[in-house]
Amino acid sequence: MNELGVHILMEFSDCSVETLDDLKRLEVVMEEAALASKATIIKSVFHQFAPQGVTGVVVVAESHLAIHTWPEHGYAAVDFFTCNTSMDYLKTYHYLVDKLHSKSPSYTTVKRGFIPQLKEADGV
Amino acid sequence: MNELGVHILMEFSDCSVETLDDLKRLEVVMEEAALASKATIIKSVFHQFAPQGVTGVVVVAESHLAIHTWPEHGYAAVDFFTCNTSMDYLKTYHYLVDKLHSKSPSYTTVKRGFIPQLKEADGV
Repeated sequence: MNELGVHILMEFSDCSVETLDDLKRLEVVMEEAALASKATIIKSVFHQFAPQGVTGVVVVAESHLAIHTWPEHGYAAVDFFTCNTSMDYLKTYHYLVDKLHSKSPSYTTVKRGFIPQLKEADGV
Repeated sequence: MNELGVHILMEFSDCSVETLDDLKRLEVVMEEAALASKATIIKSVFHQFAPQGVTGVVVVAESHLAIHTWPEHGYAAVDFFTCNTSMDYLKTYHYLVDKLHSKSPSYTTVKRGFIPQLKEADGV
């Protein structure tokens, strides 16, 4: 590997509408989701929109875990950026599938920060 | 369009090392970068790592703008998630290219939240 981070883009469709519009519940779920992959939480910021929808970011020592919800569409977009390229991010993903009650989840990964000399310099 | 958001993944290589490790400077730059695309700032959270590196997230009404820096590699990863699919995100991108003094920048966009019925239901 010669990338500095991995960015996991998660799509959660057909979710529980009630959960997607519940700021307090989402903050707990997102922090627990970060812990599921053994991330270290630094600080969380969550914001409720009117008439609906929540944005939340959990800043972690490994980078960030963010969520944006559209209750009216039963949809949530989550992205998990981690500088720990060996982190088991699927634990976070599966935890969110369960807690958001998503019947149509998916994810894709994007390698971030290709450093050509990283392999040789860091011995990885 | 039938997506709910656009996620712009920006790669900034060959940056000013000093800027990448300067939390106060980065917070100002990132907030100004958000404003350059007429985003509305809700709250910012920035964190300095030891021995180096900064993580910062600007939560905006349109979603979020986040940065993670590796001064030792002259590299910064930025991602800008916006639910305003007509936002001129290139203004944020070009502002950051300039302020981070990146000699090797690039970006890619990912459409988020495909809602098949959106086109018909919302008349877009």
